[in-house]
Amino acid sequence: MTDDLPMRVRADGLPERVRIHEVGPRDGLQNEQTVVPVETKAEFIHRLAAAGLTTIEATSFVHPRWVPQLADAARLMPMLDDLTGVRLPVLVPNEKGLERALELGVTEVAVFASATESFARANLNRTVDEALAMFEPVIARAAGAGVNVRGYLSMCFGDPWEGAVPLPQVTAVCRRLRDMGCTELSLGDTIGVATPGHVTALLTSLNEAGVPTSALAVHFHDTYGQALSNTLTALRHGVTTVDASAGGLGGCPYARSATGNLATEDLLWMLQGLGISTGVDLGRLTATSAWMAGQLGRPSPSRTVRALSHKES
Amino acid sequence: MTDDLPMRVRADGLPERVRIHEVGPRDGLQNEQTVVPVETKAEFIHRLAAAGLTTIEATSFVHPRWVPQLADAARLMPMLDDLTGVRLPVLVPNEKGLERALELGVTEVAVFASATESFARANLNRTVDEALAMFEPVIARAAGAGVNVRGYLSMCFGDPWEGAVPLPQVTAVCRRLRDMGCTELSLGDTIGVATPGHVTALLTSLNEAGVPTSALAVHFHDTYGQALSNTLTALRHGVTTVDASAGGLGGCPYARSATGNLATEDLLWMLQGLGISTGVDLGRLTATSAWMAGQLGRPSPSRTVRALSHKES
Repeated sequence: MTDDLPMRVRADGLPERVRIHEVGPRDGLQNEQTVVPVETKAEFIHRLAAAGLTTIEATSFVHPRWVPQLADAARLMPMLDDLTGVRLPVLVPNEKGLERALELGVTEVAVFASATESFARANLNRTVDEALAMFEPVIARAAGAGVNVRGYLSMCFGDPWEGAVPLPQVTAVCRRLRDMGCTELSLGDTIGVATPGHVTALLTSLNEAGVPTSALAVHFHDTYGQALSNTLTALRHGVTTVDASAGGLGGCPYARSATGNLATEDLLWMLQGLGISTGVDLGRLTATSAWMAGQLGRPSPSRTVRALSHKES
Repeated sequence: MTDDLPMRVRADGLPERVRIHEVGPRDGLQNEQTVVPVETKAEFIHRLAAAGLTTIEATSFVHPRWVPQLADAARLMPMLDDLTGVRLPVLVPNEKGLERALELGVTEVAVFASATESFARANLNRTVDEALAMFEPVIARAAGAGVNVRGYLSMCFGDPWEGAVPLPQVTAVCRRLRDMGCTELSLGDTIGVATPGHVTALLTSLNEAGVPTSALAVHFHDTYGQALSNTLTALRHGVTTVDASAGGLGGCPYARSATGNLATEDLLWMLQGLGISTGVDLGRLTATSAWMAGQLGRPSPSRTVRALSHKES
């Protein structure tokens, strides 16, 4: 591959700069069956930072029973203390999780809400309202400690039980998370069914409801191969924060459990071609994902990682 | 999966209708190592037509030495005689190939040119000019017989040896193919490196050179996961003919030789969500690709085929 590819050609109506919210170490690894040692996780995060990622969701303080892979959160965080200048948010499920995170000096957290009753019940064993009520004191206490809270909202486009999710339903939960104090909302297409018109409609609906685009991130899944065209559509609408997972971690196409996270490298190829700056070095990131795939003992599901790795081997 | 997914939401500035030029039986199968019996090929094409595809590139009349998989072209074509109302173009490399095709009653053909000298040399063992000179009598003779000629142009965006391909170079070859009588040009991103700004720039450049968008098709490869966002960009520019390969055939992600054709199902998911009509039934097409994957003894590289097949099993 020659160095001038992808050719840089800007397109009208797109932002100059995009911030990638890297979710691989948390959202990616939590779905992996292979147990990853804490030292490997720390090295992974250091490598991601060295590749230029400035926001890396590090782990989750959820109860180990639910996510055994991330049971080492309290051991991991001190291993990242040298990463100054890198935002390292962690997921917290409740007040207890927040307490543990705050004790370790965490300065950004995230909560995980659902736009649909079915998924709230399946994932949180609560109604949507009950889940929001559980998050209210978490967000308030975090805000009191000067800690920013990102609100993940899952099932923003479709739900495996309920089908297409009505826009007003999503908008209402977003508004409540904003009112409760979330500084950023990540709109999740958890089952990967969104298409560009739907993306535009939801973003427009949120604007009309008073949620500014600057407070929004998009989190698309590649289950049906739609993540990148949906992301492009969101960028056209003014979104500048995009969630992605290094190497497509958590989105293994070989496993039945595929969740299909957008691969950071596939996103980066597009952004680089569009001349949109991210500060991330594609070569270093690809090498990191290839290394992590080796740790997990299987090829990366990212098409870009596979293509670039083949060229180098 | 509920039936209301993907949710239909139209987007401004996109066409009402798109014609899918299905390339699986030719471009897809020619890269497959497993020898496929002619009866299976005929059944594949019949199933694709039954799913609603109206343009299916059936085979190639290239010398069997170069593409042994398609050496049965003369046996295959008569097996498709019952498919009235379906366009069944075939690839012809030269006058001899055209003659064989015409004898079998073929009414549409395609030639395969290159925008770069390196690929013309590698693929056709000729310079770009020599290749065009070879096609000139083919196109003239086809036109004389009332047979439409599609011109494939490979390496329109990047070339593995030459890197980024200058727009004027691509535009010049397109103009010549048009002047020689090609009724349609298929712009190929053979190594999958294009991004949306580059796509817009090439389409604009072609318009400025007098090539109407209505005479253009796009042919994106998913090597870096970019095919669908590039297709969306081309649709915004007014393109209404899109090449795709059922099940992503020819684009096996497991093989080093991956060429990465855009999967027809991944395209169809997006078009369906956007309310753009194609006449193709996603369920029947997915079942066909799952069946073909079984014939080839490996999973389909299409994310949509994998996702929908998992749901049904």
